[in-house]
Amino acid sequence: MASEIQKNLVEKNSEYASTFDQGHLALPPAKKYLVVTCMDARIDPAAAFGISLGDAHVIRNAGASAKDAQRSIIISEQLLGTREIILVKHTGCGMLTFTNDDAHAVVKQNLGPTAVTEIGSLDFLPFPELDGAVRKDVEFLKKTATVPEDVKISGWVYEVETGKVRQVD
Amino acid sequence: MASEIQKNLVEKNSEYASTFDQGHLALPPAKKYLVVTCMDARIDPAAAFGISLGDAHVIRNAGASAKDAQRSIIISEQLLGTREIILVKHTGCGMLTFTNDDAHAVVKQNLGPTAVTEIGSLDFLPFPELDGAVRKDVEFLKKTATVPEDVKISGWVYEVETGKVRQVD
Repeated sequence: MASEIQKNLVEKNSEYASTFDQGHLALPPAKKYLVVTCMDARIDPAAAFGISLGDAHVIRNAGASAKDAQRSIIISEQLLGTREIILVKHTGCGMLTFTNDDAHAVVKQNLGPTAVTEIGSLDFLPFPELDGAVRKDVEFLKKTATVPEDVKISGWVYEVETGKVRQVD
Repeated sequence: MASEIQKNLVEKNSEYASTFDQGHLALPPAKKYLVVTCMDARIDPAAAFGISLGDAHVIRNAGASAKDAQRSIIISEQLLGTREIILVKHTGCGMLTFTNDDAHAVVKQNLGPTAVTEIGSLDFLPFPELDGAVRKDVEFLKKTATVPEDVKISGWVYEVETGKVRQVD
């Protein structure tokens, strides 16, 4: 039976599709850039960062981790032609609230030994301080050989309290 | 010097923030669900899937890979309380257009030996057929011990040509 969340998806998508007129857009991002940001529920990248449909890849994961996004970034740059990276972490991020030890303890307690074995020594990639984490990820992107030197890279913080972005790096 | 893309971010964000009134939203997603979808530039998850600000985590990577999203899914479920997963792949996906061998050859040619060493045997997670890939990822999520059995999981396809979703699994 369909859940309320599935019903909402079907209903809202039906409204969206009824006026949809962007079926002509090409696969490669028109403005040749990619955004890496957090999965956080309070971020709407298209609206908050001014991304028009078809213009940019948007990669989202827990904490806007550049390292976790590496596979997607290589595909975006090397196979689909993007030439600029905008990395945006945010205030009030969940990744500021726990350590790797905390996360592994929760998995052990809630999910049991099979899950513990499955994740092994998984790095959950939490960070203790926001601006420093942005700088560290920008440095990672500038140093990795998987991102060419002519790709422009910048790091930002989005404030979930005000809706504002500010540049960090 | 700021790029055109950075200027666009600052200008559009300034407009967004000038009417922003959602600074009160809590960290955990209000509707306790998460969406996994592709980074593709032609997808606007909030608009197309009816996700209101604050309601759901949105994870995006190349191909909407559940496996690639595993770290984020564990954090979403175990630390931030989500209880349902909506996985959405899409027509015209870049991941249908290349193989792992193709991607490794491109990295070798464009980025050189340091990048080749850095990525090792990285699985780029391409897939040859769309609906089958959705079913495979739903199966992965149902089988992994990192997702509790009471988490509802469904798999969908979004049509970039029409703006419509259809349920696959």
